[in-house]
Amino acid sequence: MTGLFISFEGPEGAGKSTQQRHLAARLEQAGYPFLMTREPGGTPLGTRVREVLLDPELEIGALSEFLLYSASRAQLVQDVIRPALGRGEVVVCDRYADSSLAYQGAGRGLNPELLRDVTWEATGGLQPHLTLLLDLDPALGLQRAAQTGQPDRLERADLSFHQRVRQGFLALAAQAPERVLLLDATRPETELADEIWSVVGGLLRVLSPR
Amino acid sequence: MTGLFISFEGPEGAGKSTQQRHLAARLEQAGYPFLMTREPGGTPLGTRVREVLLDPELEIGALSEFLLYSASRAQLVQDVIRPALGRGEVVVCDRYADSSLAYQGAGRGLNPELLRDVTWEATGGLQPHLTLLLDLDPALGLQRAAQTGQPDRLERADLSFHQRVRQGFLALAAQAPERVLLLDATRPETELADEIWSVVGGLLRVLSPR
Repeated sequence: MTGLFISFEGPEGAGKSTQQRHLAARLEQAGYPFLMTREPGGTPLGTRVREVLLDPELEIGALSEFLLYSASRAQLVQDVIRPALGRGEVVVCDRYADSSLAYQGAGRGLNPELLRDVTWEATGGLQPHLTLLLDLDPALGLQRAAQTGQPDRLERADLSFHQRVRQGFLALAAQAPERVLLLDATRPETELADEIWSVVGGLLRVLSPR
Repeated sequence: MTGLFISFEGPEGAGKSTQQRHLAARLEQAGYPFLMTREPGGTPLGTRVREVLLDPELEIGALSEFLLYSASRAQLVQDVIRPALGRGEVVVCDRYADSSLAYQGAGRGLNPELLRDVTWEATGGLQPHLTLLLDLDPALGLQRAAQTGQPDRLERADLSFHQRVRQGFLALAAQAPERVLLLDATRPETELADEIWSVVGGLLRVLSPR
C-alpha cells in the first residue's frame, strides 16, 4: 500500500483534537504505522508561520493570511506528508486545504479560483483519501473553544464570519461526498470515535489486508 | 498629484541601500514628502515574515518562499504603499514584485504564470512608476555583501542561482524599458546618485510642478 491520508476539518471547538487522540489510539492498537500532524505547522517553517498566524497582536489581511497558510502547507506536503505516505504510513492531519477554502474563501471572500490554483501548486494536487468534517453550530463551537483559554486571532472573528465558514465546509462536503464524511460534532464522543474508526479501519483493511 | 512609486531592484551588494540614502537626501532637500520602505518587511506582519525568510536555520521550499514574500507584499501594498501614494507622497521601496519574478521565477524555476497571478492579487495590479535596477555581476555582488557580515539564507545560495536571478532582472528590464531604468552598479556612487536624481527629479517636476 502507499499510505492513507486523512484530514480532520471543522470549526473551533468541534472536538477535532479529541477525535484525533481516539483515532491515534486505535491505529496504535491495530498496529498501523501512522503520523499525526497539523496545519499550520508540522515543519520548522510551519511552526514559525503558525506563531505569526495565531498572534492576536498582528493585523493580517485576508490574502496574506491565505498565502501564509499556503506557505506552511507547501512545506508540510513536501517534507512530511508525501514522505510518510511513501513509507506506507497513515497520515492524520489536523486541518488541510479545505480549511483555506472555508475560512479564506467562504469566510473572508477571497477569489476561489486563486485559492484553488495556489492550493494546487502548494499540494501538487495531493488530496486526502478521507476528510472527517466535524460539523457544529459556530456559536456552540466558540463557546466550547473559549473554555480552553484566551481566544486566538481567528477565534476573535465575529460570529457571522464563522457562520460563513460553516456553510463553506458544508458546501465542500456536498461537492465531494466520496471524500468528505460529514459528522455531527454534538454526538457523544465515544460514538463519534467508533464511527470514525469503523470507516478508517474499513479503509485500512481494504488497502492493507493482514 | 497622486504620488510617485519607485522601486530599487538588483542583486545583493549592488549598492541599493547606498543609493536609497542618496535619493532620500535629495527628496528631503527638494522638499518632497516621501516614505522609504522595503520588502520583505515594512509592516508588523512583514517584519515577522522577513525574520522567517532570512533565518539561515530554516529549510524553505521555493514555493513557500514565494508565498511568504507575497504575504508580506500584500500587507505592505494595502497598509503602507497605497495610503502613502494616496497622500501624494513619493514611495521608495527596496525590492518589490520584480524580485519575486527574478529570484523565485528565474532563480528557483517556479511557474511564471502562478507568480504573475499571485502577484497581481497581492498588489491589486500596482506597479512602480519607475524601477531602478542596479545591475552587477553576482560574483562581485556576493563579495561586496560578504564584507557586511554573516551571509543570510539567500546570500548562501550558489553562484549559478544568482546568475539566473541576474538574467531574470535583465529580461524584466528588456520587457519594460519604459518602467525599468537599467544602471551599471559598478559606476561611481555619486555619478549613479546624480543620474537617479536627474530621472526622479524630472518625473517629480512633471507630476508636481511648484
